[in-house]
Amino acid sequence: MKKIASFALAIAAVAVSVPASAQFAKPEDAIKYRKNALFVMQQNFGRVAAMAQGKAPFDAKVAADSAATAEFMSKLPWAAFGEGTDKGDTKAKAEIWADKAKFNDYADKLQTEMTKLSAAAKTGSLDNIKAALGGVANNCKGCHDAFRKE
Amino acid sequence: MKKIASFALAIAAVAVSVPASAQFAKPEDAIKYRKNALFVMQQNFGRVAAMAQGKAPFDAKVAADSAATAEFMSKLPWAAFGEGTDKGDTKAKAEIWADKAKFNDYADKLQTEMTKLSAAAKTGSLDNIKAALGGVANNCKGCHDAFRKE
Repeated sequence: MKKIASFALAIAAVAVSVPASAQFAKPEDAIKYRKNALFVMQQNFGRVAAMAQGKAPFDAKVAADSAATAEFMSKLPWAAFGEGTDKGDTKAKAEIWADKAKFNDYADKLQTEMTKLSAAAKTGSLDNIKAALGGVANNCKGCHDAFRKE
Repeated sequence: MKKIASFALAIAAVAVSVPASAQFAKPEDAIKYRKNALFVMQQNFGRVAAMAQGKAPFDAKVAADSAATAEFMSKLPWAAFGEGTDKGDTKAKAEIWADKAKFNDYADKLQTEMTKLSAAAKTGSLDNIKAALGGVANNCKGCHDAFRKE
């Protein structure tokens, strides 16, 4: 009886873990997906950051559109960090899977901070954008320091 | 006077063409951006298509989420086909820039068809998804046949 219960638990564990990884045909697809989503996010965030830092002229519409796109993109990479995607063409550290709770906290926080930045950009005020920028940037840096290889 | 007018026109032409390309620091960034956005779109569209074709079990929520993401992604690649991004690590044919109107028609049509697919997926009906799938797939194929190298 105990054996059957263990087996049922094992099956359930497999069933629970399937959806995230089953979204991708191969681990390489998942790795490419998260890298590509993060690059599209970074390009949009970088455009807003360049304006906030005076490296590019401020264009309120471009800033609002780019921040909204970065916000959307910030939701996508995380489903692609499933089991079995730690090896291959990736800078992801094993710590991601060893401390998934901490990694997920960064992922959640990024989305919260991106939503704040997008709301700030919608106001059309460069000062509001500057005030919201650090929350995103610090989260990027914290997560990369902890979980990304050089 | 005629010389000055020509010069002013040339400056204006440059000024008009700057925004699209100025979104990217380098042509390589634009090329990577459009490829990455298209890959993220394709992965989400492919997930919905697999369900419609009976190759994956139908999950209404995953289908709706994936179609909505594919719809969003379908808006992003086109700003990255600016002048000077025809050379490099790309399968883009020169025809894109020689016949930008036709290329833009495909880009616009894709977004329209993706919106229909996303609306269909929101109804939760696999039959509705099947009915909307061909519009997207045909547009992908038509554009790739005309504008993408093998």
